[in-house]
Amino acid sequence: MTLDEILKEIKNAETIVILTHESPDGDAVGSSLAMRLIAKELGKNADVIIPEYSRLFNFLPGASEIKKDSDVEKYDLAIAVDCADLKRLVANEYFTNAAKTIVIDHHGSNTMFGDYNYVNPASPACCEVLAGMLQYYELNISKDLGTCLMTGIITDTGGFQHRGVSPETFELAAELLSKGVDIPYIYKMTLRTKTKANFELQKRVIDRMEFFEDGKVTFSYITKQDEKEVNAEPGDHEGLVEIGREIEGVEVSIFIRQREDKNAYKVSMRSGDLINVSDICFIFGGGGHQRAAGAVIQGDVEQVKKKILKEVEKAFEKAKGMK
Amino acid sequence: MTLDEILKEIKNAETIVILTHESPDGDAVGSSLAMRLIAKELGKNADVIIPEYSRLFNFLPGASEIKKDSDVEKYDLAIAVDCADLKRLVANEYFTNAAKTIVIDHHGSNTMFGDYNYVNPASPACCEVLAGMLQYYELNISKDLGTCLMTGIITDTGGFQHRGVSPETFELAAELLSKGVDIPYIYKMTLRTKTKANFELQKRVIDRMEFFEDGKVTFSYITKQDEKEVNAEPGDHEGLVEIGREIEGVEVSIFIRQREDKNAYKVSMRSGDLINVSDICFIFGGGGHQRAAGAVIQGDVEQVKKKILKEVEKAFEKAKGMK
Repeated sequence: MTLDEILKEIKNAETIVILTHESPDGDAVGSSLAMRLIAKELGKNADVIIPEYSRLFNFLPGASEIKKDSDVEKYDLAIAVDCADLKRLVANEYFTNAAKTIVIDHHGSNTMFGDYNYVNPASPACCEVLAGMLQYYELNISKDLGTCLMTGIITDTGGFQHRGVSPETFELAAELLSKGVDIPYIYKMTLRTKTKANFELQKRVIDRMEFFEDGKVTFSYITKQDEKEVNAEPGDHEGLVEIGREIEGVEVSIFIRQREDKNAYKVSMRSGDLINVSDICFIFGGGGHQRAAGAVIQGDVEQVKKKILKEVEKAFEKAKGMK
Repeated sequence: MTLDEILKEIKNAETIVILTHESPDGDAVGSSLAMRLIAKELGKNADVIIPEYSRLFNFLPGASEIKKDSDVEKYDLAIAVDCADLKRLVANEYFTNAAKTIVIDHHGSNTMFGDYNYVNPASPACCEVLAGMLQYYELNISKDLGTCLMTGIITDTGGFQHRGVSPETFELAAELLSKGVDIPYIYKMTLRTKTKANFELQKRVIDRMEFFEDGKVTFSYITKQDEKEVNAEPGDHEGLVEIGREIEGVEVSIFIRQREDKNAYKVSMRSGDLINVSDICFIFGGGGHQRAAGAVIQGDVEQVKKKILKEVEKAFEKAKGMK
């Protein structure tokens, strides 16, 4: 069993580093800090390296211990959490330099890039994978550790709303709640708190929202200039793609955000039951899940909009044909 | 035990009517339709009378059976669900005319206005009270009944986020999910679907939002003219008060909505940990919970705003003094 080997490697290591994916969300930061507490429970101090993340996650137990980099050149052990491939792993030089590597994840697309890979695509969050590890190791879940785990689960499932949430997910929530984990507080600090800058961006996204295909498609955008004007920080664009998706009758929500290099936009797409947005993003060299995907497209707002809408239109025609 | 008496009354009744509170939310409609299915399980056909509710709830099993009124003048039994007092009960003539009356609720402020009252203020939703009844009666929970119950729980707890959600709530969710209740679908149809009119109202609320007390207080409004322009239907103003509350640093969110009689506004207030908005609304003849309350205030937007802000300012000063 991989989990036995992982336990052995953690116990054998003198120096451990924990890494996660770029633009880290609640599950990425939550998993990293949970993994740190699991190592601690096993008698090991581990470094968590996340150069950049939303300050909204600073409420997490151990967040003040997160490092931007490290003096250790070659760790005995590197653990990647919530990350599907080496390319998306931030500060991945610590991973490639490490003597041994472990990957713990829940993405079905995981490339198994570690010496040991513990990946469960049935889990709705990497934090639930970690909870399973804890159960297997028969380790106690402290309130702090539980807070990290619940944060990953709540953020990655949108508050228990996504497919992939299982009876086990709810049972874990029941257990952690009864252990004193403050679930309403976690909701408040994650899903229910918008930064002022995020609110201002939301306002612009809503004001600019356009509808296509008889109200089945929404499109909106944010430029670098917008982000500058509202003093946006990392993470302040989170959730903007969801605004269109939640409107009655909308099947595809498109949100584009200007990239640093100005003449390109990061495209985020969400869909209902009909359209596979991963297929559409794949055409532009991107990808993701069927209902949530992304890509980068060159051009200005109008050019990018035209390119995507053309493919979306095709997808609707194809879907109609298949009915 | 009241529950035994309630069971007896349902079994003895030939004609049963189920009623709920005005401006019915997901827990009100969910409880009503769940109660209908419980009666059915006990071999009884019950009328559900709800003259007006958001069409977003039409996905609920049995929604097509909801009546606007009834030819039966005197029911053998009237059951009020999710309603704290007779005044807020819609079509309450069917209640006062009935031979026997039962109240099933979860509001701490319930006035116990029935012949039999089964009220559990510890439950985060009336639907959870009904789930407890089902357990006591050892009745099977069908997928349809489970869908009604989960709808009440998900809408009244904002998707398991509010205080009052207990380990038992999560365990019930685990049980219903394993019975095939489609929880992601319920989220989509309730919390994750905005009507187009609701979206348009949201846009106006956001555009008009003002900040006071160093960003700790937000204020916004909607007029009858707005509702007319966006073709608003019952329920389309739901959730607008939450927009301000979710912004970082906001302690009190104030949303006012013009009443039919034009020279008055319905005030909705939400707060964080510091301010008791029920106390503030009480000054204006309203009330509610500490963190969610309402009132009706005479005047135009500016007048109403001034009146509330004055009291909010006082409450902040008082809170500062108590620190």
